[in-house]
Amino acid sequence: MSGWIDEHHRGVRYGLIGEVLVEETSPFQRITVIRSERYGRGLLLDGCWMTAERQERHYHESLVHPALCGATSVARVLVIGGGDGGTARECLRHQGVEHLDLVEIDGRVVELSREYLPSIGGSAWTDPRLRLTVGDGIAWAAAAADNSYDVVLVDGSDPAGPAEGLFNRSFFEHCRRILRPGGIFATQSESPEAFQEVHLAMVKLLKDVFDHADPLYGWVPMYPSGWWSWTFAAMDQPRYRQPNTNRAAAIADGCHIWSPRWQRGAFEAIPAFIARELS
Amino acid sequence: MSGWIDEHHRGVRYGLIGEVLVEETSPFQRITVIRSERYGRGLLLDGCWMTAERQERHYHESLVHPALCGATSVARVLVIGGGDGGTARECLRHQGVEHLDLVEIDGRVVELSREYLPSIGGSAWTDPRLRLTVGDGIAWAAAAADNSYDVVLVDGSDPAGPAEGLFNRSFFEHCRRILRPGGIFATQSESPEAFQEVHLAMVKLLKDVFDHADPLYGWVPMYPSGWWSWTFAAMDQPRYRQPNTNRAAAIADGCHIWSPRWQRGAFEAIPAFIARELS
Repeated sequence: MSGWIDEHHRGVRYGLIGEVLVEETSPFQRITVIRSERYGRGLLLDGCWMTAERQERHYHESLVHPALCGATSVARVLVIGGGDGGTARECLRHQGVEHLDLVEIDGRVVELSREYLPSIGGSAWTDPRLRLTVGDGIAWAAAAADNSYDVVLVDGSDPAGPAEGLFNRSFFEHCRRILRPGGIFATQSESPEAFQEVHLAMVKLLKDVFDHADPLYGWVPMYPSGWWSWTFAAMDQPRYRQPNTNRAAAIADGCHIWSPRWQRGAFEAIPAFIARELS
Repeated sequence: MSGWIDEHHRGVRYGLIGEVLVEETSPFQRITVIRSERYGRGLLLDGCWMTAERQERHYHESLVHPALCGATSVARVLVIGGGDGGTARECLRHQGVEHLDLVEIDGRVVELSREYLPSIGGSAWTDPRLRLTVGDGIAWAAAAADNSYDVVLVDGSDPAGPAEGLFNRSFFEHCRRILRPGGIFATQSESPEAFQEVHLAMVKLLKDVFDHADPLYGWVPMYPSGWWSWTFAAMDQPRYRQPNTNRAAAIADGCHIWSPRWQRGAFEAIPAFIARELS
C-alpha cells in the first residue's frame, strides 16, 4: 500500500510517496522505515526524516569531511549518534583513522539500518577500526579521558527526546575536554530557517565554549526547509576552514557534494542575517 | 476553511497549512493566492509555488544583487517575468537604475500580486523608473535593439507552459545581443536536485552563448527540494563574481540573505558533482 509519508513542522509538511516497511517503538523513540519512489529506502525517528538512500550524502559528507580534513590528526574519532552508519562510513574513508567509537543510544536504529539501509553504513559495519557501543553518548563523553579523541562528531536528531542533551553547555564542555590539541568538534546544527533560534543559540554557545566555531550551510532536501547547517569548532584556531591537501585529495573522487572548493565557499557563504547575529 | 496546499513533484510534496483566497484560470495558467500560517500570503502558478511574503527574499536577493552589483552600469534594466514585483523592487533599490522594463506575460499575476501581496512589489509599482508591459518577454527580447540594456533578468517559472521559451538558445542569443558591453544576464535556473538535467543543460548552454556563465546555489524552502540555483552570464569576463564595492554598500543593510561575502562564497560553493559536470 503506497501513500504519502510526511514530516510536519510548524504549518509546513514535506512528504514522499512510499510504503511503510517497519514501524515500531523502541525504548527511546518511534522508528519508521519506508521505501520511497524518489529516494529509495528511508528512516524516520518520531516522525522526522533522518535519512534516505539517495539523499544521505548531503548530510554525511557535510558533517564529516570539513572536520576530518581539518584536524591535525584523525587517528581517534568519536561519533555520537549516527546509528544509520553513514557518518562512520565517510569517516572510515580516511585512511588515517585508526579507531572509531560509534556510540548510538538506540540499538534498534543500528539493527534496522543494517537490515533495511545497508548501503548507508556500507563497509563501516565490518571495518575492524569501528567499535560500536549501544549507549548514552552524553554519558560517554562525560566519562571519556581528557585529550582522548582527535575528532568528535555529533550526528543526532532534533533537540527533543533522546537528543535533547546534545545541545547544552555541559555536553559541549566535555567534548572540548576530551578533544586533543589540534582536534575538531562538529555537530549538525539544525536549519537556520526552520529552527532559527536553536541554530543561532548553538553557534553562539559553541563559540563561547571552544573559542572558534563557524556554521556551514548546505542542503538536505528532506529536512524541514531543505536548508541545513553543521557547525565546526576548534580550540586554538579555526582549522576546519582549510582542508589538508593530501587528506582531501584522497577522498575527493568519491564525494557527491563535498570538495575543498565547496567547503571553502560554504564557510564564506554566510547569509546576511546570520552574519549580523554572530558579529 | 484551512487545509494543506501542496506542490507535487516526482513523488515528493511540499505543503503549507493555509486557505485559498483566489483561484482562477487566466489565458496562460492557473493562479492561486493563499494565506499560510507559516509564511503569510503566497502565490502558486499551475500548482507550483512561486513566492510567499515571508520567504521571497531568498529568491529575489539571489537573482538581483549579484547581477546589479557586477554590471559596469545599471542604468537600463530588463526584467522578463517577475509579475509579483519582488525582482523589480530589489532592482530599484539600486540608485543607478534609471529605467526598468518589466515584461510580464500574464497581467492577472500583476493585478493579483498588487492586491494580495503588496509587500512583495513594495514601492516598485509606483516608482517612475518602472515601465510595466503586459506582453511576451521572448518577443520583447527578439524585438529590442542591440546593446539596449545593462542588465537582463529572467524571473520565470518552470520550463513548461508560458515559461518554456525562456530556456532555449534562440532566446539566450537575443538576450546576449541586447546586452551592452559590460552587461550581465541572470536567470533562475531551477534546482540542481529536483530538476538536475534542466539545470545542467541551462548552465552549459549559457556558457556556450555568453562565453562566461556560472551557477550560484541558495535556498528557496518552498520550491522542490529547497535547493535552488540562479545562473549569471557575461560576455567579456565573469564580472558578476566581484561585487562593486559602492553599489554593494548602498544596499547591504536592507538585505536578508545577500551580502558581498555571501555572494563570493556562494559562487565558490559548487557541489562536487556539478563541478565535474561543468569542467
